[in-house]
Amino acid sequence: MISVNEARERILLHFQPAAIESLALIACANRVLAVDITAAHDLPLFDNSAMDGFAVCVEDTYASGTTLRHAEPRSVSNRQATTLNVVADIPAGSAPTVILAKGETARIMTGAQLPAGANAVIPVEDTDFNNREAGTPAPKTISFAKIVKMGDNVRRRGMDIQAGAVILNKGRTLKPQDLGLLAMLGIGNVQVYKKARVALLSSGDELLDVDAPLESGKIRDSNSYVLAALIESAGAEVLRLGVARDTRESVEALLQKAIHEDADLILSSAGVSVGSFDFIKTVIESKGRLDFWRVNMRPGKPLAFGEYLDKPVIGLPGNPVSAFVGFEIFVRSALARLSGKLDESRPTIKVRSEKEIESDGRESYLRAKIREENGVRIASLTTSHQGSGNLLSLVQADALLIIPAGVKCVPAGQEVEAYLL
Amino acid sequence: MISVNEARERILLHFQPAAIESLALIACANRVLAVDITAAHDLPLFDNSAMDGFAVCVEDTYASGTTLRHAEPRSVSNRQATTLNVVADIPAGSAPTVILAKGETARIMTGAQLPAGANAVIPVEDTDFNNREAGTPAPKTISFAKIVKMGDNVRRRGMDIQAGAVILNKGRTLKPQDLGLLAMLGIGNVQVYKKARVALLSSGDELLDVDAPLESGKIRDSNSYVLAALIESAGAEVLRLGVARDTRESVEALLQKAIHEDADLILSSAGVSVGSFDFIKTVIESKGRLDFWRVNMRPGKPLAFGEYLDKPVIGLPGNPVSAFVGFEIFVRSALARLSGKLDESRPTIKVRSEKEIESDGRESYLRAKIREENGVRIASLTTSHQGSGNLLSLVQADALLIIPAGVKCVPAGQEVEAYLL
Repeated sequence: MISVNEARERILLHFQPAAIESLALIACANRVLAVDITAAHDLPLFDNSAMDGFAVCVEDTYASGTTLRHAEPRSVSNRQATTLNVVADIPAGSAPTVILAKGETARIMTGAQLPAGANAVIPVEDTDFNNREAGTPAPKTISFAKIVKMGDNVRRRGMDIQAGAVILNKGRTLKPQDLGLLAMLGIGNVQVYKKARVALLSSGDELLDVDAPLESGKIRDSNSYVLAALIESAGAEVLRLGVARDTRESVEALLQKAIHEDADLILSSAGVSVGSFDFIKTVIESKGRLDFWRVNMRPGKPLAFGEYLDKPVIGLPGNPVSAFVGFEIFVRSALARLSGKLDESRPTIKVRSEKEIESDGRESYLRAKIREENGVRIASLTTSHQGSGNLLSLVQADALLIIPAGVKCVPAGQEVEAYLL
Repeated sequence: MISVNEARERILLHFQPAAIESLALIACANRVLAVDITAAHDLPLFDNSAMDGFAVCVEDTYASGTTLRHAEPRSVSNRQATTLNVVADIPAGSAPTVILAKGETARIMTGAQLPAGANAVIPVEDTDFNNREAGTPAPKTISFAKIVKMGDNVRRRGMDIQAGAVILNKGRTLKPQDLGLLAMLGIGNVQVYKKARVALLSSGDELLDVDAPLESGKIRDSNSYVLAALIESAGAEVLRLGVARDTRESVEALLQKAIHEDADLILSSAGVSVGSFDFIKTVIESKGRLDFWRVNMRPGKPLAFGEYLDKPVIGLPGNPVSAFVGFEIFVRSALARLSGKLDESRPTIKVRSEKEIESDGRESYLRAKIREENGVRIASLTTSHQGSGNLLSLVQADALLIIPAGVKCVPAGQEVEAYLL
C-alpha cells in the first residue's frame, strides 16, 4: 500500500495548468493570474495632494511673518501668520494650468494634481478658511501659522509603484485588493487560467435522491452535495453526472459522459473497495489503467487513481468522511495545479493535543476542535465519534489533525500538524 | 470624534437580518441558515456493515473450532477456523429478508443493512474467500480464524445522530460538510436568509473607467472593483451604480437609484471629507440625517454613516486603503448582521511585532506580513509604505495589525492583535 505523499505525487504528475483566457476585471475575483503583471506607469501618476487644503511653496511661508529669529522657525510661538493670495482652485480630476508665483497659493482637493511652483500642501483645518460647505467658492486670501515642510501632504509621483515593477505574480489567486491595483494600472482585461472542470459522479444502488422517500436498506446520496461544494470552493467548475447504479453499463455510461464533456478530471465516490458490486475499477481498466487503489491512510484507504481514455480519474471512498478527507488531501492539490495556482499545498498549522490520541499506524486525519489559550492552539477530538461514516464529526470540527504514518500514540501536550477546515 | 467601537455599535443598530427564503440544497453553500435544523430520524437509519465482508452471529463463531480452552478465545494461535454456510448475498441498498440461523452467514457489502440474527461482520480480507472481482457470485461456505467480537464492523442505528437532536444552528454559514448532513436527513430545501443587497457607488470627477485613456490630473476608479469583490466575499449581492460626478444632482440621482432598487445598504466611497466638492454629506442630509462623519482611526478617519430616505448609508473614504479598512471594520459587520450570521465579528489573531511601531494615537490598522517561527507568529510592516493611497501595501499584506487608540509606540516583541486578510 502506498503512502499519502507518494499517492499525491503520482496524482500530481498527471495535471498541468489549464488553458488561459482573457477575462473582464470585474469577473476576476478568486481567479488565478496566468501572467506576471508589470506596472505600465508610475503610481501615483502625478504629484498630488493628500489632503483638502492649499498648495504652497514652502520657501514662501518663511517670508511673510514679521520678526523671525531663525531662517527656519522651530515653534509656532515665535511665528506669525503667513498670508497668501489664492490664485486658483484645483478640484480633483482637473489639470492645473496655474504656476504659483511668490506669495500665491491655490486651493486644492485631496487627490488633485499639484500645480507647478508648489511643493507642499497646508490642510484646510490649519488655515483661517473655515467655510467647508460643499460648493463654496475659494477665498481670496488665506492665513496660517503652522509650519510647513517641503513635501508635507504631497504624494509624489511613483512613491507607491514605479513603472516596470512586477506587482503581481503569475499563479496568484486574485484578492479584492489585487483587482484595485489592476484597475489603477488600466488593466481592464486580465489573463487568467480557465477554471478546471470536474465531472462528478456518485455510485451505488443504495443511494437515493435527497427528495426521494426513504426505502428500507437505502441511504440518501450526500457525497455529491459535499463534493460539488468542495470543488467550487477550490475555484473549479462542477459537472454533475448523477449516480451510477451498480452495473458495469451504468458506470460506463457516466464515464463516457465525462469524456464527452471533456472534463479535466473525473471524480467519483464509492465503488473502489473490494466489494463485489464495485464496477468502477473494472470499467476504468477496460479503457485505461488503474495506477493505485489503496493508500495507507485513515479514513480513506480505498482511494483509487487512474486514467480512463486518457482522462485522470480519482475514485474517492464512499464513506462521507473518507470522501471529504480524500478530496482535501488529493483532489484539492490536483485542482490547484490544474488552476495554475502558485501554492498547491494546503497550509497546515501547529497545534497541541489536549489528550493522548491513539492511532492505528496509518496516516490519520482526525476531526478536532481548536481553541486558543494564552497564545497556544489546543486541539481536542470532536465529541462526535471518529467513524468514517459520521459526517457530524466533520460538521463539528475546526481542523483535521494529521497523525503521521507509523505513530500509534500521540501523548497529551504533543505538537501535531493540522489542516484548518 | 467617536471611537471605532462606538461607530460600529451605532452602525449595527440599524441592521437586522434580511427576510428568509427556501433554497434548493444544491445552492446553499456559504448561505446562512435561518432556522435550527433538527434530525428527523436517526443516522445511520439502520444497523449496517462498515466493511465488505460476511455478517455473522458472534456466538456462532465460538462453536465450530475444535478444542477451545475458553468460552471467549483470547488469541488466534489456540483457535481453529470457523466455517459457515453462506445463505444470502446482501448488496448495499437492498432490504435483507433472510434471518441467519445457527451456522449461517450472509455476504454483505459496506453500507448494507445487517440481516436479522447477525451482530458482527467479518471483513472479506479475513476469510478464505479471495475472489474479489466485481460481479462474482457469493461462495457457498466461508472459513476464517480471526476472532470476532459483538458489534465488530457494525454501525449501529443512531450511533452518529439520534432523531430530535439539533445538528446545525440558525445563523451558521453552511459549509460543504453541512450540506452533506442536510442531504442525509432528506432536507432538499433549506430555510436561509436572503442575501443582503448593497448599492455601490464611487464619487469624484477625477475618476476614469479602467478602460478609458488617461487624462491629466485624473485617476482610474479602483474602489468600485475592490469594494464589489469585498461585498461578494461577505456573501452579499452588489448593485453597481457607477460613479457620481461632483455635483449635487449626480449624487442625488445615484442615491435615488439605490432607493429604487430597494438596496439594504448604500455604500459610497470618497466624497465625505471636508473638500468643497464633497456633496454626498449634504445630499444625505437633505433627505435624511448624518449620524457621524469622522471616526478616530487611521487610515479611514473621514467615514460617514447616516440614513437617506430611511436607508442606511455608509460613506467610505476615497483613499483605497482607507476604503478597504473601512469596509473590513464596519461594512463586513453590518453585512454579517444583515445576513443573519451568528458570528458578526471578524476573528483576530495574536501576533508579535518584530520591530518597534510608531502610531499617532488613533486606532490604527497597519499592513503587515506574518510569518511563523517556532510556533510564534511574527508581524512586520510591509516593505511598501503605509500611505492610505498605497494599495500595494494591502496587496503585500497578510494581515492588518490593530494598534489601539491612545498608543503612540508598540515596542519590538510586543503582542498585537491582527485581522488576517
